[in-house]
Amino acid sequence: MPMTRVAVCQYAIDIDDPAGTLENLHASVAEAAESNPDVIVFPELCTSGYVFHDIPEAQSRSEAVDGPTVQLFRELSLQHHAIVVGGFCERSDGERPFNSAAVVENGEVLVVYRKTHLWDTEKLIFAAGDDPAPVVDTSVGKIAVMICYDAEFPEMVGSVARRGAQLVVAPSNWPAKHIPPGERSSEVIKAQAFAAVNHVFTLVCDRVGPERGVDWIGASVVCDVEGYPIAGPAQGKPAVLTVDLDFAWASSKTISANNEAVGDRRPDLY
Amino acid sequence: MPMTRVAVCQYAIDIDDPAGTLENLHASVAEAAESNPDVIVFPELCTSGYVFHDIPEAQSRSEAVDGPTVQLFRELSLQHHAIVVGGFCERSDGERPFNSAAVVENGEVLVVYRKTHLWDTEKLIFAAGDDPAPVVDTSVGKIAVMICYDAEFPEMVGSVARRGAQLVVAPSNWPAKHIPPGERSSEVIKAQAFAAVNHVFTLVCDRVGPERGVDWIGASVVCDVEGYPIAGPAQGKPAVLTVDLDFAWASSKTISANNEAVGDRRPDLY
Repeated sequence: MPMTRVAVCQYAIDIDDPAGTLENLHASVAEAAESNPDVIVFPELCTSGYVFHDIPEAQSRSEAVDGPTVQLFRELSLQHHAIVVGGFCERSDGERPFNSAAVVENGEVLVVYRKTHLWDTEKLIFAAGDDPAPVVDTSVGKIAVMICYDAEFPEMVGSVARRGAQLVVAPSNWPAKHIPPGERSSEVIKAQAFAAVNHVFTLVCDRVGPERGVDWIGASVVCDVEGYPIAGPAQGKPAVLTVDLDFAWASSKTISANNEAVGDRRPDLY
Repeated sequence: MPMTRVAVCQYAIDIDDPAGTLENLHASVAEAAESNPDVIVFPELCTSGYVFHDIPEAQSRSEAVDGPTVQLFRELSLQHHAIVVGGFCERSDGERPFNSAAVVENGEVLVVYRKTHLWDTEKLIFAAGDDPAPVVDTSVGKIAVMICYDAEFPEMVGSVARRGAQLVVAPSNWPAKHIPPGERSSEVIKAQAFAAVNHVFTLVCDRVGPERGVDWIGASVVCDVEGYPIAGPAQGKPAVLTVDLDFAWASSKTISANNEAVGDRRPDLY
């Protein structure tokens, strides 16, 4: 069976060092490219950085879809014959930019998604998108994209699974928080759980820091359709996670002789 | 602040040894009672056993709500001044019994819930309930009850959280399956995730075995509102888990300066 090789590029992002951030991105891609991945994933806001002081700063760093970040994704997709997914600060017609992600293949932009669930101070900086998370037909299969906090809503992951998503990709920036000793962060736990609930692969590309005093979990992870990590969780350091996925496994929803993931739902009861 | 002490009674159940099963239940309660719990929880089908050969056998072991199992819950609730939650095989007017759970306080049955999501061969034995999972007003707060596979549907847990549940209790029988070395079972992961998603406590009371050749995970767990286990997961052996819960923590949904669990959902997008 054909396998899909995904590469998750977790690197250090610093809003005050755009050149260094871009260097880290390129070093990460170079490492990923050694294994000829079919899909390369970058974090949320992967070139701009995350910790904006205010709206004007975010707007000043924002880019149109034909701006340099998505142009870079297009070039990388051609150079490495890979689908590229990553986040960028998208210029809008309004006062506030969007926190967006693009899916690019063969030099073409397949979709741009605007984050709909904003986390904490993002609500003071960004405009929220109003469109559902897309499920994109790619050469390797159906890939859904959502961004960070979006992927913590089970209904959001469920909605793309019902539309046929086989792999759910979430470029993310997970801020550090208290995690009890020996535990995985609850964000990782959710990525695991929602994979199992929907019998899909889930992939989170996190980042590391620090950035303007904020630390980051750096726990990028790829979960199989039964909810178990098959790459990561990364341990808070720069890392490239590479793993092969059998997309067909996510198309079958059979979980017992008499049960179907997704199909066993009883929406009349919720 | 007043704390609510819960005791989770995970013991060995054997459909071919009802007397031994009842002995195990009583030994478990005796151990639990030493810490004066406010809530005592038993597994799914906690006196009958689970692995029925066929419908007639299940019907023959079924009981009305005024039958011996719920009567035992009533007596235990009076004797230990505790709310009792547990599963039993409920007689029906039809050919098939229900896989039910009762919540009992002060000698009174507060609610009987009939499992709505049936797992595997349960579909060949039981009738599925058609009512949503209840949220019960008790002397300690709002307790929701659902049974085993029910609690693996995030919409099910979400629905009771939206109705004010502070603690979600799931009497369960988790059949053994392949779990990668070093991993918690995906059922435990879901209990963790859905606690965090909804900012509620989740509690699963599992059982151990074996029973007619079936083994069981035996991973009873209590998760705090951030999704981290505060008791268990148990390790496949008989165990009484006891832990104190601050129900008020589940009433606040604030998860950042600008975010609310449950409230941040965008149902228009799913």
